[in-house]
This record gives sequence, structure tokens and C-alpha cells, in this order.
Amino acid sequence: MKSAIILLSGGLDSATVLAFAKQQGFACYALSFDYGQRAQSELAAAQQIGQVYQVIQHQIIPLSLDLFGGSALTDKHIDIPVNGGEQIPVTYVPARNTVFLSLALAWAEVLKAQDIFIGVNAVDYSGYPDCRPEFIQAYQAMANLATKAGVEGEQLQIHTPLIAKTKAQIIAMGMDLGVDYLQTVSCYQADAEGRACGACDSCRLRALGFNEAGFDDITLYQK
Amino acid sequence: MKSAIILLSGGLDSATVLAFAKQQGFACYALSFDYGQRAQSELAAAQQIGQVYQVIQHQIIPLSLDLFGGSALTDKHIDIPVNGGEQIPVTYVPARNTVFLSLALAWAEVLKAQDIFIGVNAVDYSGYPDCRPEFIQAYQAMANLATKAGVEGEQLQIHTPLIAKTKAQIIAMGMDLGVDYLQTVSCYQADAEGRACGACDSCRLRALGFNEAGFDDITLYQK
Repeated sequence: MKSAIILLSGGLDSATVLAFAKQQGFACYALSFDYGQRAQSELAAAQQIGQVYQVIQHQIIPLSLDLFGGSALTDKHIDIPVNGGEQIPVTYVPARNTVFLSLALAWAEVLKAQDIFIGVNAVDYSGYPDCRPEFIQAYQAMANLATKAGVEGEQLQIHTPLIAKTKAQIIAMGMDLGVDYLQTVSCYQADAEGRACGACDSCRLRALGFNEAGFDDITLYQK
Repeated sequence: MKSAIILLSGGLDSATVLAFAKQQGFACYALSFDYGQRAQSELAAAQQIGQVYQVIQHQIIPLSLDLFGGSALTDKHIDIPVNGGEQIPVTYVPARNTVFLSLALAWAEVLKAQDIFIGVNAVDYSGYPDCRPEFIQAYQAMANLATKAGVEGEQLQIHTPLIAKTKAQIIAMGMDLGVDYLQTVSCYQADAEGRACGACDSCRLRALGFNEAGFDDITLYQK
């Protein structure tokens, strides 16, 4: 059984990715970050999802990305946008996927795992540069030069099973896999119980996804 | 005046890099990590060096790399080797430079800086894969696809002024720049006062460097 690291945020996408990796027969290790994100209930969701899928280990790494500032997701002085439309929105956390993949890479080296799963998506990606296929390819090339395993001829693979899917297709895939989306938190400003605002970009994308996929939106909203 | 992030460990190499970046006219921001390294006096040295060079800001990011284990530098159950000779030694911290550069990249994005300095060295590099020029080139290519600045056409540059130098050449360069090496800690197992063991790979490389450069070894040793 091959081991894999799954980046698990507690959101809809990464829960779907974990279900997929598990179905593919990987021994799954979940990795989450406490990086000063506003919605701490996202982390509680990640823990619950990790338990449901019986991951072998779930590490939650404290990471002070808020020290750098610069994002509405970690800086309480910047408002969460509710109307979309920008090229790269203020919810972009600088270099987030680069940082998360790097820590996944470190853990993969220790576990001698050659597989990392990440729920990036280039379709409904809100304009984040680090969700594009060309970024993932460049990351994989770099990672294979960075590591002891790479030097010794092993090839690390970064799996992005959602990269070409719309939110509706992701939800349909997750429904097939039996993901309980009630356990997931997508909202940028969810409350302590994980209830969604219904107005931020992430909420709007999620609601649209359920609608387009032809499923009831089971998300719990604040009002 | 252009801003640059300098990865500053408190060791001889990164102190030399900071002096070099300052001399090149960069507005310097220092970045260090408290990653469970055994030699905590290294961090005290980093702080002192940052003050000497009047960096604009010095961030010390807590980072629990020791949660992953796998290195003699962060795992107290693995002995520090004193006889060298291995291909990739147990002092290798998995994906360390990848992780450090990724956090530097995050801060660079926030500061709108296009320059990151890192004191990697491919000559006396103890066999670490993430110190080689091909790794740095791949990292830079990835970083330019990862970021908002990259998407908008800016080019990030990773400066590695020491990459092709021997330890003796680095020390000669630092002496020219006026670096006070008494303030630096290179030892993998320095004591609380920053005094070196004199036996680990890092101590041996440093002592040899002073000798070959024709300078007295001013390092404080434990005995």
C-alpha cells in the first residue's frame, strides 16, 4: 500500500480529494495548517473529515502566515469581498500553495511517500496563480531536484484530481464517493459552528456548484 | 532602493550573504525560523547579526519541522555525526530550503520584493540536494508561476552569492565585507552560549575554511 500526503483544509474540495485518494488505495496522511485563517471552524471540519476517512495520521501545523499580512483571509483589517470580479482577489494568501506543498514535501520525505494530493482547481479558481497546471508542473520538477528521494531516482508525483473540474463536477464526483459535504466548511468567514455567510466568493461558488450539479445545497448558513 | 528578503540562520554563510546584500544596496528584511533545531543559540546569533546590519525588519517564524522528525538536527534521538563521509547525512532536514524559500516567497509577495538571498553552497555542501544550482533554478521558475507578481510580469530572483565558493572563499569574502564571525554560530550542537563542539561536520568545515583562508579561527569552542 503506497503512502500519500493529502492537503486537507476542511473545505469541500480537499474532502473530495481525500475520499478519492482513499478510493485509489493509498494509505492516507492528512496535513492541515493553522495559518491565522479567519475561519477556524475550517480546521475543526478538517479534523472531523480526517477521522471519518480514518487517516493514519493527521498533522495540524501552526504556521504564522498572518505575521506577513497581505491577505483578507489572515488580516482582519482587510474586508472579505462579496461581489467577486477582481483579477486576483484580496483573499489570495501570498504563496499559500507553495508553502503548503513544501511542508507536504518535507513530511513526504520523512515518510518515504512519493505522492501528494492537493485540491487545486483551475476552473473555478478565483484567479489564484498557484492553482494553475503550469504551477503544479513546475513545482513537481523543483521537488524532484530538492529531495533525497529525487536524487536517488524516485519520482514524486503531485496529484491534482480536481484541477480541470468545475465546482459542479467536483460535487458530483464527491457525491459518487459518498462525501458528506455537511461536514465541510468553505466559507471565508464561517462562524465558530462552521455556518457559512452565504455572500463571500467561496460561498457563492459552492452554492452555484450544488445548483449546477443538481443537488440540494446542504450548507448550514448563518441566517 | 530595492527590498530583499535575506534568509538568516545565524551561521557563517548567511551572515556573509546579509553583509553582501547590504553592500549591494538592498533594503534588507531578515527571515529566520525556529524549527526545532538543536542549536537555539543559532537564533540568538541571527538576531544579533540582524541588529548589526540594521535590517528593516527581522521575522523569526516558529515552524514545527520537528513534528515530522527524520533529521538529526531536529530529532534528539538521532546522533549528530562527527566523522562525515556519508552521501546525504542525517543532519539533512527534509526539504528545508524548499520550505524556507517558500516562506521567503510569501513575505516577498507581501513586501512587493523581487529579490531573495540564500546562503546555499554547492561546494562544501555536505551532499544536501537542495543546495545545488539546478534546484535553485527550478525553484525560481516555479516561484515565477506561483505568485501574483509573476503573473503580472515581475521576475523574482533568487540570489545565491556563495553557491560556487569554498568555505575558505566565503570567509575571505566576509572578511573583506567586515563580517564579525565571532557573532556567528555554525555548530550543529552549540551550547546555550553559542560555543561550538568542534567535532561535527559543520565545525570541521568551518575550522578548515578559516585555516585555508589564512585567518585565525576565532570560533569559541566548548573546550
